[in-house]
Amino acid sequence: MTQITPSRSQIPELNPPYRLLLGPGPCNVDPRVLRISSAPQLGHLDPEMFTILEETAALLREVFQTKNDMTLCVSGSGFSGAEAVLSNLLEEGDTLIAGSLGFFSGRIVDIASRVGATVINLETEPGQPLEAATLEKAFQENPGVKLFATAVAETSTGLRQPLEELERVTHAHGALFVVDAVCGLGGIPVKVDEWKIDACYAGSQKCLGALPGLAPVTLNERALETIKKRRKPVQSYYLNLEALNRYWNGDHTYHHTICSNLVYGMREALRITCEEGLEARFARHQLHGDALKAGIKALGLRILTEPGYELPVLTAILLPKGVDEMHIRKTLLSRYNIEIGGGFGALQGRLIRIGLMGYNANSQNVYTVLEALEHVLPESGYPVTRGTAIQAVDDFYASQH
Amino acid sequence: MTQITPSRSQIPELNPPYRLLLGPGPCNVDPRVLRISSAPQLGHLDPEMFTILEETAALLREVFQTKNDMTLCVSGSGFSGAEAVLSNLLEEGDTLIAGSLGFFSGRIVDIASRVGATVINLETEPGQPLEAATLEKAFQENPGVKLFATAVAETSTGLRQPLEELERVTHAHGALFVVDAVCGLGGIPVKVDEWKIDACYAGSQKCLGALPGLAPVTLNERALETIKKRRKPVQSYYLNLEALNRYWNGDHTYHHTICSNLVYGMREALRITCEEGLEARFARHQLHGDALKAGIKALGLRILTEPGYELPVLTAILLPKGVDEMHIRKTLLSRYNIEIGGGFGALQGRLIRIGLMGYNANSQNVYTVLEALEHVLPESGYPVTRGTAIQAVDDFYASQH
Repeated sequence: MTQITPSRSQIPELNPPYRLLLGPGPCNVDPRVLRISSAPQLGHLDPEMFTILEETAALLREVFQTKNDMTLCVSGSGFSGAEAVLSNLLEEGDTLIAGSLGFFSGRIVDIASRVGATVINLETEPGQPLEAATLEKAFQENPGVKLFATAVAETSTGLRQPLEELERVTHAHGALFVVDAVCGLGGIPVKVDEWKIDACYAGSQKCLGALPGLAPVTLNERALETIKKRRKPVQSYYLNLEALNRYWNGDHTYHHTICSNLVYGMREALRITCEEGLEARFARHQLHGDALKAGIKALGLRILTEPGYELPVLTAILLPKGVDEMHIRKTLLSRYNIEIGGGFGALQGRLIRIGLMGYNANSQNVYTVLEALEHVLPESGYPVTRGTAIQAVDDFYASQH
Repeated sequence: MTQITPSRSQIPELNPPYRLLLGPGPCNVDPRVLRISSAPQLGHLDPEMFTILEETAALLREVFQTKNDMTLCVSGSGFSGAEAVLSNLLEEGDTLIAGSLGFFSGRIVDIASRVGATVINLETEPGQPLEAATLEKAFQENPGVKLFATAVAETSTGLRQPLEELERVTHAHGALFVVDAVCGLGGIPVKVDEWKIDACYAGSQKCLGALPGLAPVTLNERALETIKKRRKPVQSYYLNLEALNRYWNGDHTYHHTICSNLVYGMREALRITCEEGLEARFARHQLHGDALKAGIKALGLRILTEPGYELPVLTAILLPKGVDEMHIRKTLLSRYNIEIGGGFGALQGRLIRIGLMGYNANSQNVYTVLEALEHVLPESGYPVTRGTAIQAVDDFYASQH
């Protein structure tokens, strides 16, 4: 591809448009988070910064519902957290079982393969959960598996994966239980200690309501012991969890230059989360997610996800044949400044995905996106009786009182 | 270490103090950069975001002085850029020569070892450059070396490493020439194309004047060919340069969730750099770096770096025995809100490091830090005749007109 290099004068002052981010993340953050992100910078070795790191880690423990000492943020996107956890726990020649529920947990396979591990890939149909019996069979057929990793919330299909039985099977076979909570943390319960999760990673820009760029991770003593017993050093300097933990929770020895302003935003987003209270926050996400689904179903559209396994925070909507997914998304963006997501892989062109996460999980946004869809769907090949979805949402909210 | 978990009420609103960041980076950014960092977010797949990425890459090419198509930012600190370059170019079993000039370029050894490469480590005395003859000898003694990597600006010792002869030797032996410009880019010339640098990585929070969290990298066709010819996939998903380049400069296929707000800041910092003009910017860094050194020398203190090889942007100052480095740094921070750096490794306690980078490279800061040092040095065990440094700086600036 030939690069067009604009001359300086062609690159003007930036004035990004205001978008309502109702896709799979990032979501709009609370204005408190944006404001603090432009506070004066601190150096990564400033004693004031150390206090902020400790406070942020303490708040993260509340949200992960854990007492794990090793609770911190990797300086990168959610995938950097996934890679940190997997590449610290795994070595070349290890075997893991991956519960691939879609595009995102499917990346566990790619990341672990690059580490040099052997992957047993249990792939479900889009929107279907992984059954414990399937996992049990995989463990029985493959002795010596080191860990099992899957997601509690699969962003590409809107699936909420029940974990209790998978945990039981995993630990019965002596493996580590690793959970991707990128899309779930702060929106649905992720009880790291109670659910005996050995290692968990999350994202900042979804239900937690911070900016992208910091990936929360938490590892228990068992996971930490696994790292300590490695035969070879972790393949990455940047994602070395022992060094990161020393910087965050130990003597704060230098490891890398963290972005103070991203940490400010994460700390503020976590404060907002704890002010609201976890249970209230989960209930809010459930309420508005259900309201959205009521509106979608009233339009005659189907939810991709197996009933009973739908995520509240992300709704994946199947489009009938002939309905133009790109037209829907482009028009929502150009006419309404609303961003929603499309489908990945085999689901490309067949799916729209609507997220109601963190600050964005409210009734106003439910009405806004459904009103827009009532206008845009008919232009995209899907007839709508005006007012259907809105009325369904009115009825739904009324029924909740 | 037992964690103290503060209850929610103990974690108040954040009001970070204003620090003058005159250490080795991060440096205070232009207020324009901070302001834009709180602009409305954009999704990582928004067409407006793609335009911003293309503009940012175009501006980066101007600053790297290159036409390289593969010019982008890794979403992480400077070390993530180093690791991206080294782990994409190197495979297990490869051999590289590292020009370790201090703590930072010394990390090349660690990063490359974790990749599984064999490292021939050419380590210089603190503040001494690497001689081309030493490199020539290493190449002759080790046939089949794949690449040579060193820094143009070593932050731990204030060294500016001449590159011309090292490039000649490296290419004469058919190896790739890789340069760490983390501390240099935007403050001293880094002419990627003219100097035949095959791969170069930089930092955002130093002379470029952006926030930490994005590591600019650029690779030429020869480096790209090396990646294409790999026997095994790159060990990291997160740092996979071909996928990152496709996202930044190709069809913008999803790879990870980039932080729009950090990119806004980088774009603005690059606009500011190009508005000033590279030559004017380098001259400004040289002028104020020289002024600082004139003041330091007038106090009777020694610069660590070999004369003729001093970086303008970072001055490493040797403390005589008995002078209390920690007292100097702590008092500057607590009384003046000025952050400066200390020494690493064998230089711990023996060194202070003062950075004048990006927005911070001005006469006001030269006077501010020297005035503060004139007060603090006597309390730390080093006598000073009040006014000595300030007078020397006055004389220096006067001599420049």
